[in-house]
Amino acid sequence: MERQFDEELRALKEKLLRMAALAEESINYAVSGLMDRNEGLAHKVFEVEEQINRLDIEIDQKCFELLALKQPMARDLRLIVSADRIGRELERIGDQAVNIAQRALEILKFPALKPLIDLPRLAGLAQDMVRDSINAFVNRDDNLAREICKRDDEVDTLNNQIFRELLTYMMQDPRNIERAVDLILVGRHLERVADHSTNISEDVIYLVKGKSIKHHCETRDFSET
Amino acid sequence: MERQFDEELRALKEKLLRMAALAEESINYAVSGLMDRNEGLAHKVFEVEEQINRLDIEIDQKCFELLALKQPMARDLRLIVSADRIGRELERIGDQAVNIAQRALEILKFPALKPLIDLPRLAGLAQDMVRDSINAFVNRDDNLAREICKRDDEVDTLNNQIFRELLTYMMQDPRNIERAVDLILVGRHLERVADHSTNISEDVIYLVKGKSIKHHCETRDFSET
Repeated sequence: MERQFDEELRALKEKLLRMAALAEESINYAVSGLMDRNEGLAHKVFEVEEQINRLDIEIDQKCFELLALKQPMARDLRLIVSADRIGRELERIGDQAVNIAQRALEILKFPALKPLIDLPRLAGLAQDMVRDSINAFVNRDDNLAREICKRDDEVDTLNNQIFRELLTYMMQDPRNIERAVDLILVGRHLERVADHSTNISEDVIYLVKGKSIKHHCETRDFSET
Repeated sequence: MERQFDEELRALKEKLLRMAALAEESINYAVSGLMDRNEGLAHKVFEVEEQINRLDIEIDQKCFELLALKQPMARDLRLIVSADRIGRELERIGDQAVNIAQRALEILKFPALKPLIDLPRLAGLAQDMVRDSINAFVNRDDNLAREICKRDDEVDTLNNQIFRELLTYMMQDPRNIERAVDLILVGRHLERVADHSTNISEDVIYLVKGKSIKHHCETRDFSET
């Protein structure tokens, strides 16, 4: 009985790993579509999204089944609750990739505004955060999880820099405005991917430590409040 | 024993209701701060956020406790899993209010770009969705929940209209660009509030029907895929 339960937990973790790999792949397609000006790559995101959504429903059901039928205690219970939460974050990372792909398809209707340098860097940071947060989950590595939370600031800083640069393009020539706004939104979507990875990392810390560090992990700047 | 459990479930629901009321209040402060050009109102959002975060942690702990100690079955289990998920959505609605307040404080540094008409309408739609989705949860009203999911399209359409209008302001005069971009981002944050309410509505349908309708509720336009 117990071995069967362990087997089911292992299968659950594997589903999450697969979902994380798809989420990462999906961002990759979306950003490469934009960078290489390749609509086909952007369209692949919609295919991957369907696979992500199927896995999302499977994970939901599996978590509920394990909670209902096995009545797990303490450590296993935390694992299942975390898996449920992490599944939802990955699903939303997939949604962000869809948003980026949709933006990319808009952007590709017009000539390139500028060579994109910081945006792929931002995408790289966000993708690393997705991958590492899932590794932290699988290896129950709360130190890695804490480190990922800190990277969120780096992402925000780089995105702000991208934002400021694109503003200058808009100021220079109104014909740049639409494309620049679309690129700003791509930056925002990547920032959201990083946010979701931070949420996953917080879930990992909860899983390992049994305590929530939410609302402490982030070092937001509310200096005036 | 059973009555005590019912009592605890009731208390959990009440916490969620309080959290929802705070989330709504928070959006109200953020948007009113922007509309009335009142920094004090925008700053109130940061105070409310702390209350929301405290409730979020309390709900997390309560859900886990109920899962661990009471080993609930079927219907109660679904209620607790849903409460856990809905708490997380409300917490993020609070985060969006913080984002709007931060934008508002930026926007208030400069004279008003234009009279804001559609943005408060968008805010109203988003706030109604928050309130109604929690009512759907409390009353286990899956019909209301389904109806809320549909409203998400209305929000997207209105936000796109706002976006297009602000683009024209940017084209007219580069001095409008920064403020217009900030207003575009406020629109995006409100759209996210509506998304979170849609997620809550999906959770309500799961709670009532015992089946996930995720990825069907949304009628996204992937016409080319």
